[in-house]
Amino acid sequence: MKVMTETLALATRGHTDVIDLTSQVDEKLKETLLKNGTVTLNVCGSTAALTTVEFEPGLVKDIKEFVEKLIPSHKDYHHDATWGDSNGYAHLRSSLFGTTLTLPFSEGKLVLGQWQQVVFIDFDNRPRNRRLVMQFMGE
Amino acid sequence: MKVMTETLALATRGHTDVIDLTSQVDEKLKETLLKNGTVTLNVCGSTAALTTVEFEPGLVKDIKEFVEKLIPSHKDYHHDATWGDSNGYAHLRSSLFGTTLTLPFSEGKLVLGQWQQVVFIDFDNRPRNRRLVMQFMGE
Amino acid sequence: MKVMTETLALATRGHTDVIDLTSQVDEKLKETLLKNGTVTLNVCGSTAALTTVEFEPGLVKDIKEFVEKLIPSHKDYHHDATWGDSNGYAHLRSSLFGTTLTLPFSEGKLVLGQWQQVVFIDFDNRPRNRRLVMQFMGE
Repeated sequence: MKVMTETLALATRGHTDVIDLTSQVDEKLKETLLKNGTVTLNVCGSTAALTTVEFEPGLVKDIKEFVEKLIPSHKDYHHDATWGDSNGYAHLRSSLFGTTLTLPFSEGKLVLGQWQQVVFIDFDNRPRNRRLVMQFMGE
Repeated sequence: MKVMTETLALATRGHTDVIDLTSQVDEKLKETLLKNGTVTLNVCGSTAALTTVEFEPGLVKDIKEFVEKLIPSHKDYHHDATWGDSNGYAHLRSSLFGTTLTLPFSEGKLVLGQWQQVVFIDFDNRPRNRRLVMQFMGE
Repeated sequence: MKVMTETLALATRGHTDVIDLTSQVDEKLKETLLKNGTVTLNVCGSTAALTTVEFEPGLVKDIKEFVEKLIPSHKDYHHDATWGDSNGYAHLRSSLFGTTLTLPFSEGKLVLGQWQQVVFIDFDNRPRNRRLVMQFMGE
């Protein structure tokens, strides 16, 4: 059993930017030479999230519209009074969707459905340079 | 330390079918003979989810009503225009609840509260045959 | 590779009490002497949740207001008819936010963003004595 911690740099556009990470996680997995185990991802931030989705343009639009309706960006939040950075909505969305994700891999491949991709969603109100940590554990 | 990847076949009814998996995960855990570690589950699909709940009929109804109000099934979604399969709402619900779940086990038993069960929720708009992956890691 | 299962006792006030766990998880991690691996937390209950957030008073208020709007505490839920304990809303919130969380650690430290804290949220309608399980796996 081994533990390997890798970092991925992501330049995002913010504003609920939905980024398909699947091939990048798969590539890192191949480099580890591990065959069976788990990968645990963490966003390292509090205005973005990780989830899985069928990554296609229609659904990406649906996600944007859904989160805007659920937690509107134009509303006033108490957080905005604390720092004046006007991204309270992005924090709430991040806490709701979650910032960590663990996936199994088997025979050297991520265990995912055929139409299931791993995505990073940046809810912040501006482009960001993000650091995503991927920790592989297995044999 | 060992890694063991198991598959569970589930025949679901769709339409926010909430299925208690706890005893099936527990049984598989017993078969592994592992005593301490984690099990990581993945739905292998993008219209279902995993979470924990007190599994009783009232709460199952509450979940159905809550998700129907939050992400209505009768609305038009951009995803539906992509494939014409009318299940955009099921995808959104799946991304929100999440498709993976990791639980610790200790002394050969899942670490859960007394009223806490692991459930699979199938949000799709038709019955489905699902493949759930359970990966046990421990000693 | 080792597996160590630790328990944390928490006295909460209920009513969406948001508690920063980061330093307590960090302390337990130091005691394990493990350097690289993951910690998997579970709430051991069905009316509380775990997530990450920038822990500051404004955002804590935003979370309280958001969940109250999304899943109101004053509404009638089918669950309340089952047990008469009037906390159906707390169960729904718990299932939505999720009761488990896995985080990587590296070089003896939790992998988190600078403004990202691990929080326990107790949604129940009364103060509770909670048992949180933390399982460390690594080397």
